Amino acid sequence: MKIPDAEIDAILEHHPVARLAVRAGREGVFQVPVVFARSGGRLWSPVDAKPKAGGELARARHIRAHPRVSLLLDHYDDDWSQLWWLRVEGEAEIVQGSTASDERAVAAVRALKVKYPQYDHTAVLREPATLIAIRPQRLVSWRAGD
Amino acid sequence: MKIPDAEIDAILEHHPVARLAVRAGREGVFQVPVVFARSGGRLWSPVDAKPKAGGELARARHIRAHPRVSLLLDHYDDDWSQLWWLRVEGEAEIVQGSTASDERAVAAVRALKVKYPQYDHTAVLREPATLIAIRPQRLVSWRAGD
Repeated sequence: MKIPDAEIDAILEHHPVARLAVRAGREGVFQVPVVFARSGGRLWSPVDAKPKAGGELARARHIRAHPRVSLLLDHYDDDWSQLWWLRVEGEAEIVQGSTASDERAVAAVRALKVKYPQYDHTAVLREPATLIAIRPQRLVSWRAGD
Repeated sequence: MKIPDAEIDAILEHHPVARLAVRAGREGVFQVPVVFARSGGRLWSPVDAKPKAGGELARARHIRAHPRVSLLLDHYDDDWSQLWWLRVEGEAEIVQGSTASDERAVAAVRALKVKYPQYDHTAVLREPATLIAIRPQRLVSWRAGD
């Protein structure tokens, strides 16, 4: 079964975590969990200010080389009748929020801080922030049903 | 911080869900949540008997075309000091358990049924099962720390 549109909207607004996948190099694929917020018709994910284990810089580099990404939101439950997933396929770009004139990035950072009060206590969402902006092109969903 | 080896071992043995990513076509990437079990040095994930929304058949087709996959295991928590992820990069193949002589597949199905008692009540793991077998080549891990 597909997930009804109204529920998809709520998931994109409130679900706290997604997994980002992007091509890496000639044959590989890179994958990492991300937080994200919706703003201005796009899904925005911060590139942490503190690079760790090649993760942060890698995702930005791979996206620049291969902008077609997948963002997977899902729910796992021991009760398999509760399973669902939503895959957002889209075009990503790296947005440097360094120009104060970029109102899209300013609004995105605001949306991230509203969604994640954790940012009150962490320095990772420095400003100017570096952000991944994903323009959804196709949504594919599934949830358990008969 | 990396995750210590002993904990990685426990995660690979017990974590209930992973996200599989594989290249799709010339530019895209396919991603879907999967269950999996470890057996014989590989990670095995069933291809459900009941194809749904292009998901099941798609993953097998993409893996045949591009065997290099990523399997992402992670934990999200509102307390960001509890976050961790483990990415398994490896080579995948589609194994048809139809030949009773394939003891690897038989052992893998057994491991899946031990790990997931849910299979007692669902018909998706029919036999002969179709399985994705992933041979880990590189593990990358991260957990919150300073």
